[in-house]
Amino acid sequence: MPAKTTYTDVLIVGAGPAGLMSAVCLSRLGISFKIIDRRLPGEAAGHADGIQPRTTEIWDTLGMGDRLRKIGVKMCQMAMYTANEDNTGVRLTGQTPNSNVPGTKYPYEIILRTEDIEGIMTDTIATYGVRVQQPTVPRKLVVLDNLNSTDGYRVEITCVNLNADRVREGQVPLRERGSVAEDPSYINNVEVFRAKYVIGCDGAHSWVRGQCGIAMDSSDAGVSWGVIDFTPVTNLPTPRAKNIIQSPLSGILATIPRPDDTMRIYAAWKENTAVTNEMQLAAMMESKLPEFIKRAFLPYQFEVKDITWCGQYTVAQRVASSFSYADCVFIAGDACHTHSPNAGLGANASMSDAYNLAWKLAYVLHGWSNLDMLGTYEAERRPCSVELIELDKKIHELDALDGAYPEEYVRLLQRQRMFATGIGLEYRSRLTENTFQSLIPGLLLGQRIPPGDILRYHDWNPCDLQDLLPYSLSFKLILFPGDVIENIPRHRLLDFLSVLEGTLTAHIGKELEVAAILNVKKAAFQTLPQLSEILPSTRIYLDDRLISTTPEHQGRLHESLGIRRDFAAAVLVRPDGYTAMILPMDRDGVRRIRNYVRSLSSRDAIVLQTPSGLAARL
Amino acid sequence: MPAKTTYTDVLIVGAGPAGLMSAVCLSRLGISFKIIDRRLPGEAAGHADGIQPRTTEIWDTLGMGDRLRKIGVKMCQMAMYTANEDNTGVRLTGQTPNSNVPGTKYPYEIILRTEDIEGIMTDTIATYGVRVQQPTVPRKLVVLDNLNSTDGYRVEITCVNLNADRVREGQVPLRERGSVAEDPSYINNVEVFRAKYVIGCDGAHSWVRGQCGIAMDSSDAGVSWGVIDFTPVTNLPTPRAKNIIQSPLSGILATIPRPDDTMRIYAAWKENTAVTNEMQLAAMMESKLPEFIKRAFLPYQFEVKDITWCGQYTVAQRVASSFSYADCVFIAGDACHTHSPNAGLGANASMSDAYNLAWKLAYVLHGWSNLDMLGTYEAERRPCSVELIELDKKIHELDALDGAYPEEYVRLLQRQRMFATGIGLEYRSRLTENTFQSLIPGLLLGQRIPPGDILRYHDWNPCDLQDLLPYSLSFKLILFPGDVIENIPRHRLLDFLSVLEGTLTAHIGKELEVAAILNVKKAAFQTLPQLSEILPSTRIYLDDRLISTTPEHQGRLHESLGIRRDFAAAVLVRPDGYTAMILPMDRDGVRRIRNYVRSLSSRDAIVLQTPSGLAARL
Ligand SMILES: Cc1cc2nc3c(=O)[nH]c(=O)nc-3n(C[C@H](O)[C@H](O)[C@H](O)COP(=O)(O)OP(=O)(O)OC[C@H]3O[C@@H](n4cnc5c(N)ncnc54)[C@H](O)[C@@H]3O)c2cc1C
Ligand SMILES: Cc1cc2nc3c(=O)[nH]c(=O)nc-3n(C[C@H](O)[C@H](O)[C@H](O)COP(=O)(O)OP(=O)(O)OC[C@H]3O[C@@H](n4cnc5c(N)ncnc54)[C@H](O)[C@@H]3O)c2cc1C
Repeated sequence: MPAKTTYTDVLIVGAGPAGLMSAVCLSRLGISFKIIDRRLPGEAAGHADGIQPRTTEIWDTLGMGDRLRKIGVKMCQMAMYTANEDNTGVRLTGQTPNSNVPGTKYPYEIILRTEDIEGIMTDTIATYGVRVQQPTVPRKLVVLDNLNSTDGYRVEITCVNLNADRVREGQVPLRERGSVAEDPSYINNVEVFRAKYVIGCDGAHSWVRGQCGIAMDSSDAGVSWGVIDFTPVTNLPTPRAKNIIQSPLSGILATIPRPDDTMRIYAAWKENTAVTNEMQLAAMMESKLPEFIKRAFLPYQFEVKDITWCGQYTVAQRVASSFSYADCVFIAGDACHTHSPNAGLGANASMSDAYNLAWKLAYVLHGWSNLDMLGTYEAERRPCSVELIELDKKIHELDALDGAYPEEYVRLLQRQRMFATGIGLEYRSRLTENTFQSLIPGLLLGQRIPPGDILRYHDWNPCDLQDLLPYSLSFKLILFPGDVIENIPRHRLLDFLSVLEGTLTAHIGKELEVAAILNVKKAAFQTLPQLSEILPSTRIYLDDRLISTTPEHQGRLHESLGIRRDFAAAVLVRPDGYTAMILPMDRDGVRRIRNYVRSLSSRDAIVLQTPSGLAARL
Repeated sequence: MPAKTTYTDVLIVGAGPAGLMSAVCLSRLGISFKIIDRRLPGEAAGHADGIQPRTTEIWDTLGMGDRLRKIGVKMCQMAMYTANEDNTGVRLTGQTPNSNVPGTKYPYEIILRTEDIEGIMTDTIATYGVRVQQPTVPRKLVVLDNLNSTDGYRVEITCVNLNADRVREGQVPLRERGSVAEDPSYINNVEVFRAKYVIGCDGAHSWVRGQCGIAMDSSDAGVSWGVIDFTPVTNLPTPRAKNIIQSPLSGILATIPRPDDTMRIYAAWKENTAVTNEMQLAAMMESKLPEFIKRAFLPYQFEVKDITWCGQYTVAQRVASSFSYADCVFIAGDACHTHSPNAGLGANASMSDAYNLAWKLAYVLHGWSNLDMLGTYEAERRPCSVELIELDKKIHELDALDGAYPEEYVRLLQRQRMFATGIGLEYRSRLTENTFQSLIPGLLLGQRIPPGDILRYHDWNPCDLQDLLPYSLSFKLILFPGDVIENIPRHRLLDFLSVLEGTLTAHIGKELEVAAILNVKKAAFQTLPQLSEILPSTRIYLDDRLISTTPEHQGRLHESLGIRRDFAAAVLVRPDGYTAMILPMDRDGVRRIRNYVRSLSSRDAIVLQTPSGLAARL
């Protein structure tokens, strides 16, 4: 039987958090793609459960935040327990908010089962008529060079669609699905995908990464950790906090509250537990972990009931030397970085990779941008991985020190919190233009736009600044024209809009969408002068509250962002919600926007073929 | 074929807003009931679309608020248009928040289609395994006197289950379903319900009301109104506000924004439109309404497109002389009061009736209360109906005046707003005890508990005061013990709890549930002394914020409620969220709670048989 050939703009290999997030994003952006996975339909794998504040914001921009918050448990509190005075057990020595970051609507981690994290995304792509093709494994990857690929479908991946029943009956473990793909009795058919781009989201042992010969920076395996999901019976004062227990009897462990009053515990295994190999460890976990844990919480009662999962791993901290190959194969998620699960960051970073990459692929596929754009993926995301791993290592170094004082641990977490929660993440690449920060001190260049209360002019609906930034193809140009009831600001706005319209007509409604936040009282701004075609009344907002108990409610956002009353400023926000540049609302501002938009697609830039070259230029 | 006999605690006749809300409430309270309606499954009827703020809060307590807000449009703004200077059209003369009430999370009306309002409730009862029995019509109602009904099933309603296909094919109009119930070819079977209680929710022409011989206070039919649902094409500056248009060309009309960018218009028909009977009116509506409306909005463009519904009615303001019969038949909703639809109150009042009645029925059925309790339904709800109708009449009087100045109209609305939104509703009956208001000035006796930010001690989850008040069987005793880190307040709390436990053990977890809001900083209150069996740690809250940017964040709720630092107070809240009494946290307080709970079920009260007698005693 000759292999079937399937053409697709993008092929996503792997349907874990990175792959599914890629799929959700591309679906929204209207890009055609296929997604494959070696898992059986409904087969669970993966154990991530903590969604960080920025990821929750991201889910909102994709219309998935409500379900996330409905299903998940909010982990708001962190509590520290250290040795009590006579070293016979622990005592509560500190409490702090777990995600102590200002300026987010969601200052907590949301904990839910991996099946639910993946399930919400699977349901979302289903609304676009897409489903994961599975069980399917890739067998061969070939990149045609530009000369030999006149149709643009440069990557050829030969895949095997496995027979699900046979795999199920044969109880073939996940790792062996590649091997059985050689056995005809397991094969439904062979399918050759011809794709313009491939995203390898196939996890820590990425096959795609291997095919491209991308190296991982190696790292020593650190401490061994045991993980256990169960129902606790305890009189611990903070059973639903994230608890960091430093027990003189059992060493370090951490508890995570999970849905339905269940709990996860991460426990560090130390030499003195006399375990030398993995087999022993696994055996010991099932028999000894409950007892080990029980001791760790003394003098509190602590019983481990109804274990639903139990696993172990050694911490490996690695990052890929490159995130792409030949401008057409990209890797995302655990395929390019692995962390210890303790920090609760891997899946979050994986989804952020996908969120960062998807719109850039869409831009190139739409012809709105040249290949240069794709290099910014590595330029922006790799430093984040490196930083995540630095953080992780530091935490583990502290964990390894017997006498590590939790306060130091907490200070470290605190210091890195802005970064770990994703709230303080900063993207530096050619997409961030270092301009006019002082005009809007509260919107930081390269960082995500924070929330803020505004009122939609159109219907006075209370809205949030972040509501203006759904994940879509367009950059959002948000104007802060000031008090447009007064003549000077109004004329400045009208002038700006007319120059903008004249200069950028071809791009408006495509790469560019305009919105405005006026610094006026809601009832004062009665009749809307038809401002401009490019600023429909549905995209005008007021810096006021619906129910104002004090007059000062008006202008609060401007004040908190530090926008001066006498200035008019604008911010250009990327499709993924990060600040690209800040501008004065004048002709120079328009010129800069024009240059920015043109530079995305300008043919001047040399399209390089080597992946290392891409990153080097940025 | 002999009629089948079905025993049920409650029979609900009619599945509009009042009937379905009764069903949702009884489901939650674990009461067995049946609900019948003459409509075919899926057959739409009713045109209510505006959900007021208090009703939205109520839906939250029943777990239905999220879907309501997701589907509905938030009508936040009200705009007034009056004659322009040369009387050739209108101009915008005022704007105000539509539900300008402080102290609610939902300061707006939520507009959605009746099908969706009813659909969410139907889905909710389905989760309890209940569905509406339809098409079914009642034919005979008999109340057995106490002597003849030894089993407590005092009401016998003979019903006819109609053949749905036959009704559908025969296109039998709703009003004639009672008559075809006499025709054997339409009958599936006859079913006799034996119920302890019946709730007649069968609308303005209530059959149940008729059977009980309850009179309606008559009222003159007032102005005629036309209603039309359509898609507008307009350049009106406020297309998504509730607009009150007083046009010199077309008279008064009001617009309501509806989902999917559609709109509803209510238009007053005046003599000079030369319409004298209903037939003429209906004919004219279809042909002339769009033109009539178009003129009303001049000089703005206004086109009426894609009409989906068009109806007319004359305003009838009526209220039933009694809301019950023989202590076992109750009427709720339009069956006991009708309003003009313009104020958007009928369905809201209907649902509030059901919400008020259901828990009282549950109390009596559980034996936790004597029949006296049921009399409070009329005592509390009838004055609301009367007041609603007063309001309605005043509005219509103004509408009828040609020169009525919209500002006067607005002032009237403003004054009545607290009442109309349901936020300021006050229940005065024997269930409200006039005690110690000054201890908590911010929680008004007889009124609903307002929202307020608190933190759950257990897991530091941000919560709202109203989250403590789900619709359930128990009264909630909420304690404000003060700063329990200090000795005096802590001992006062412990004393109170132990006396309470000693005195009310039999009622705790049943009629009574205890919660506490401590006036302490979250991190200060570290280890919870096991306070009391009756106050589990999951019901302890802190008056603090999760992320505090200023130290003053702690104690904000106490401050806003006016609770003095040196006092400890408690509030007893009814199952439906209204304040029953306010108490000092001392032995006298416990005694008062005990007396209150006992008085609910005390056998001293004489059980009266006449409906008028019931109300008279309260
Ligand atoms: C115990 C534990 C707890 C954790 N907790 C957290 C947490 O709280 N928060 C957090 O952010 N992270 C957490 N992590 C990390 C997180 O699980 C990973 O970072 C995340 O799953 C990576 O997502 P991914 O999509 O890149 O890879 P994966 O989740 O590994 O998904 C890869 C997918 O590709 C498929 N695949 C692999 N190879 C092939 C192939 N050859 N052919 C076809 N398909 C293939 C796999 O079947 C799988 O579906 C935790 C990890 C562990 C082990
Ligand atoms: C145009 C219009 C707009 C309105 N807008 C609003 C608004 O925005 N907000 C608002 O709050 N209110 C509004 N109302 C009022 C609202 O529709 C009513 O107050 C509300 O529907 C009353 O609810 P109910 O359940 O008491 O009665 P109904 O909705 O009339 O329901 C009665 C039910 O009983 C059934 N029934 C009747 N007789 C029998 C019988 N003999 N046997 C079996 N079943 C029977 C009917 O089929 C029906 O399902 C509006 C009304 C109109 C006409």
